[in-house]
Amino acid sequence: MSQAKIAIIMGSKSDLNIMQDAADVLKELGVDYEITVVSAHRTPDRMFTYARAAADRGIKVIIAGAGGAAHLPGMVASLTHLPVIGVPVKSSNSIDGWDSILSILQMPNGIPVATVALNAAKNAGILAAQILSTADEQLVINLKAFKEELARKAEESAEELES
Amino acid sequence: MSQAKIAIIMGSKSDLNIMQDAADVLKELGVDYEITVVSAHRTPDRMFTYARAAADRGIKVIIAGAGGAAHLPGMVASLTHLPVIGVPVKSSNSIDGWDSILSILQMPNGIPVATVALNAAKNAGILAAQILSTADEQLVINLKAFKEELARKAEESAEELES
Amino acid sequence: MSQAKIAIIMGSKSDLNIMQDAADVLKELGVDYEITVVSAHRTPDRMFTYARAAADRGIKVIIAGAGGAAHLPGMVASLTHLPVIGVPVKSSNSIDGWDSILSILQMPNGIPVATVALNAAKNAGILAAQILSTADEQLVINLKAFKEELARKAEESAEELES
Amino acid sequence: MSQAKIAIIMGSKSDLNIMQDAADVLKELGVDYEITVVSAHRTPDRMFTYARAAADRGIKVIIAGAGGAAHLPGMVASLTHLPVIGVPVKSSNSIDGWDSILSILQMPNGIPVATVALNAAKNAGILAAQILSTADEQLVINLKAFKEELARKAEESAEELES
Amino acid sequence: MSQAKIAIIMGSKSDLNIMQDAADVLKELGVDYEITVVSAHRTPDRMFTYARAAADRGIKVIIAGAGGAAHLPGMVASLTHLPVIGVPVKSSNSIDGWDSILSILQMPNGIPVATVALNAAKNAGILAAQILSTADEQLVINLKAFKEELARKAEESAEELES
Amino acid sequence: MSQAKIAIIMGSKSDLNIMQDAADVLKELGVDYEITVVSAHRTPDRMFTYARAAADRGIKVIIAGAGGAAHLPGMVASLTHLPVIGVPVKSSNSIDGWDSILSILQMPNGIPVATVALNAAKNAGILAAQILSTADEQLVINLKAFKEELARKAEESAEELES
Amino acid sequence: MSQAKIAIIMGSKSDLNIMQDAADVLKELGVDYEITVVSAHRTPDRMFTYARAAADRGIKVIIAGAGGAAHLPGMVASLTHLPVIGVPVKSSNSIDGWDSILSILQMPNGIPVATVALNAAKNAGILAAQILSTADEQLVINLKAFKEELARKAEESAEELES
Amino acid sequence: MSQAKIAIIMGSKSDLNIMQDAADVLKELGVDYEITVVSAHRTPDRMFTYARAAADRGIKVIIAGAGGAAHLPGMVASLTHLPVIGVPVKSSNSIDGWDSILSILQMPNGIPVATVALNAAKNAGILAAQILSTADEQLVINLKAFKEELARKAEESAEELES
Repeated sequence: MSQAKIAIIMGSKSDLNIMQDAADVLKELGVDYEITVVSAHRTPDRMFTYARAAADRGIKVIIAGAGGAAHLPGMVASLTHLPVIGVPVKSSNSIDGWDSILSILQMPNGIPVATVALNAAKNAGILAAQILSTADEQLVINLKAFKEELARKAEESAEELES
Repeated sequence: MSQAKIAIIMGSKSDLNIMQDAADVLKELGVDYEITVVSAHRTPDRMFTYARAAADRGIKVIIAGAGGAAHLPGMVASLTHLPVIGVPVKSSNSIDGWDSILSILQMPNGIPVATVALNAAKNAGILAAQILSTADEQLVINLKAFKEELARKAEESAEELES
Repeated sequence: MSQAKIAIIMGSKSDLNIMQDAADVLKELGVDYEITVVSAHRTPDRMFTYARAAADRGIKVIIAGAGGAAHLPGMVASLTHLPVIGVPVKSSNSIDGWDSILSILQMPNGIPVATVALNAAKNAGILAAQILSTADEQLVINLKAFKEELARKAEESAEELES
Repeated sequence: MSQAKIAIIMGSKSDLNIMQDAADVLKELGVDYEITVVSAHRTPDRMFTYARAAADRGIKVIIAGAGGAAHLPGMVASLTHLPVIGVPVKSSNSIDGWDSILSILQMPNGIPVATVALNAAKNAGILAAQILSTADEQLVINLKAFKEELARKAEESAEELES
Repeated sequence: MSQAKIAIIMGSKSDLNIMQDAADVLKELGVDYEITVVSAHRTPDRMFTYARAAADRGIKVIIAGAGGAAHLPGMVASLTHLPVIGVPVKSSNSIDGWDSILSILQMPNGIPVATVALNAAKNAGILAAQILSTADEQLVINLKAFKEELARKAEESAEELES
Repeated sequence: MSQAKIAIIMGSKSDLNIMQDAADVLKELGVDYEITVVSAHRTPDRMFTYARAAADRGIKVIIAGAGGAAHLPGMVASLTHLPVIGVPVKSSNSIDGWDSILSILQMPNGIPVATVALNAAKNAGILAAQILSTADEQLVINLKAFKEELARKAEESAEELES
Repeated sequence: MSQAKIAIIMGSKSDLNIMQDAADVLKELGVDYEITVVSAHRTPDRMFTYARAAADRGIKVIIAGAGGAAHLPGMVASLTHLPVIGVPVKSSNSIDGWDSILSILQMPNGIPVATVALNAAKNAGILAAQILSTADEQLVINLKAFKEELARKAEESAEELES
Repeated sequence: MSQAKIAIIMGSKSDLNIMQDAADVLKELGVDYEITVVSAHRTPDRMFTYARAAADRGIKVIIAGAGGAAHLPGMVASLTHLPVIGVPVKSSNSIDGWDSILSILQMPNGIPVATVALNAAKNAGILAAQILSTADEQLVINLKAFKEELARKAEESAEELES
């Protein structure tokens, strides 16, 4: 895990079925990552230590997923200068996802969280790769290929539907 | 400020015009309090130290007010065993208060925040006094008198309206 | 049931599958409780008698759960000086829980209800124990142990995920 | 006030600027009413006595207005067999009126409240008159005239706009 | 069907599984009713004729249920001086019921609809009986017995839960 | 007014400050229109007559604006085979416009209303012109010029901002 | 597919189970259509080409369905002077459909989208036919017959329910 | 403006009073930017050209602000592999900002937009700087100083309040 550039963290192990998508797309794009559980509310000390140490360990971007009153992404953002991507998770104790979205999105001035759509861990992974690609030409190539593949598949389904 | 039993904290000094109501009603009920600014996002270290030390300093209840993605009440609750009362503040960067309410209310199992109505710092103060009154007979008397006064005023306005 | 310090009441027996969580966590924390059905709308006299008599019977905190136009927690709070914890229940006749939440949370100045998350009866139980713990050193110890256990389990699942 | 058939009550004197519309339209329709303040939360005993005694005093319909966690209409409905009309008031402590509406509208099976639009005390007055008109031929005539006047004015403004 | 005093109408036959509750409770309370489908959007002429003729046929109260953009209750109210009770139905094409509720509740000044909770056709039936009871002593007796039965059952479930 | 192809109607004269935008843009695009008040709730007979006669008078498209429980667009659509464009108006008795939007948009299968944005009477006018342009080459030219002008102005403001 | 007058497009092939309803009703009404997948986000070039070329190919109306952040209808409307009908689809990544509705409905002044109800592709088809019927007498006849059939079926279900 | 690394674009010049905050904080952090108007709906060609050319001109991150049905951020994201930050603007035609937020946030899998809070252009600027800082040590130093200044000011206001 030593050379991981992206950290994927989540408030509870039950978020893994959503957050795995971030890991999968990073692997597809050729980006090293680490993945673990960090709970803002149950393990605040661990969160502090983890967020404070991340940059020095070589992490460049943190992806944090959480549901309900989802404080993990925002608190991690308050503890590091790294860009933090927040994934609102529609957990079982969530009110249709609105609580997760608003708790992550509506950060005060000074401490941004880059929020993606409800349950959109895949987009969090892609966004993390885009961030790294601002200084990594190979990743630019990979991302362009990824986009072309998206287009190719959409065109394929268009052809299928038309015929 | 040494013998304060209630701590009133808020995420930003701009919340004071709301949070002052908590202080005022505690004074009216004869309960000592302290009041300060503790920002979860701008001063996370201060929040950690403050929340962790509160019980040992003799604080019995923490009232925490915040707006937008309001993480202060929930994070303080994660850092102490004391009861924490959360006041959702409809700050200027809030979406009609929904973000403040949901970020404070929808805490996961294990870490409750006693949430009161939007901007209802006065009720937070009364609730804090009710909590202390479970072991303070004088406060019970004060709270009963407070309730009677509420009723008396409502009856007075009924009489005014009828005549 | 004579020396119970916490009363758990609910608007309908159908709320029991949610409200049982409050009872279970209180038992785990070593706090005596009583539990019954009190309907604000179907048995208003019973509610009046119950709420008015609770303090004299030795009850220190009332936990009240209800769904839809959930008036039980607020009405009980109007009838006693005891702290009242409200549990919004997402009952079958509820609009995604919004009605339950707003009917319990948005109490007027003077009569607070300590509201917890939708269906979060477990947190209501913990909050009740926290309130008692302001004058009960043994409960402080139990609550600290409970918090440590939460952290330990979260760390365990972190280890599982990492490996 | 002895022969009033409609009772107009409100949770707070500050609701009067809205609730006066009910009184005005009842006067216009020739229906006697009484009007007063009854607070579910500040004067629960008064509410009990008032609601329980209303039918015996000759009241036929109760119009109850309240804002925020608006329990007055529903609680009065639980205490009498009379039809109760609820007026959600967008008070200053209301969340855009949603709390008032849902607390009044979403009553459980068995205890209906006839809810009208936000702040629509005028419609509450008309509905009360419609209810009485089911056994009062003169009121039927008055209501038909009222409807015709509405139509006449709308047609007048159509003519104005067209020319 | 000639002497029915209550008309139960609905926008679509698919609303019957909800609206049947109104019929059932009216039968239980001893009130004659008629029941049919009247669609504001598919059969506007039928709606006009039906609503305009209802009073002369002896109907005293109209209960109208509809889902989605639910115009039936409000349009019927515009076409008669009779009290109209609206039942918002959470039909398959509804957005969590919000569209049904707001289309029925938010009537303009002059034309009230007595709105009950989402899917609460039972309460619509009880409200209709309450309206008739303002001039029918036997119905008062039946409604009081109904209320007592509600209380008795709630107390029974309280006893069950306590033991 | 005899050769008008577009009818602009509104539920109340107070909607005119919004609905005038439809008239203005139609004039700009060279399309004849008529404009009047037709209230679904206050003048249902007028609405019936107006909607039923519109096609025979040569009207091709009806633009209907209304607020609150906005039944006018949908009811007109039920009474004619002409395309009906609905403008949700955020009137004073509206709940942030949600009631107007949902009452107009959520029409059942079989009776569409072409809904535009809240208060967007200008877009209703443009849409009406687009509909006529499907059989009017001059209007196509006018609409293309209108679009080019929109683009030109946006580019102008881009240049201003850049310099 | 050469003489199609209506184009039905959708953001993803997974929207087909909803969008097929538009095709079916157009066939029923005797209107030629073409149907395909055009993704605003995955195939922006294809969207540009498709929308820009549609009018010259003889298309008169475009029906565009999409879910979540549904940009297809609005972007197509920005690229053509043809009337565009938007169908908000409640896709799996949608928040109860609110995102789809608001992204399609709330277009800025100058570029209207004729929005229909959530998932109401059938109504989109009918609306497209209504638009064509402004210059096609046969379609007027077909639409009138369609409306009569709707009424006939509603009356049939009324008769069924009454008996 | 030739060496700008950040592009700030907005749908309308009226968004400038919000979007200027992004420019100001970038200047404060020492990051070069360019700023202009690009309208998705009024100038779709310009948007295509601008988004497609941005990377080759040396732009590393695009900040896009828009209100209502806010398609600009998502469409730009579909046209480039660069990271795109979306700022929901509460414009005058917005429904309390919900439309802007959902149109920007709820992007489908494959095309992320890094969404910040309503009107939070300042946070968009900081996030853009954080992204660049993943490969720019000087920016890391500047961001850390910025964070320390935030903390210092919050502590200052704490001291003020306490004294």
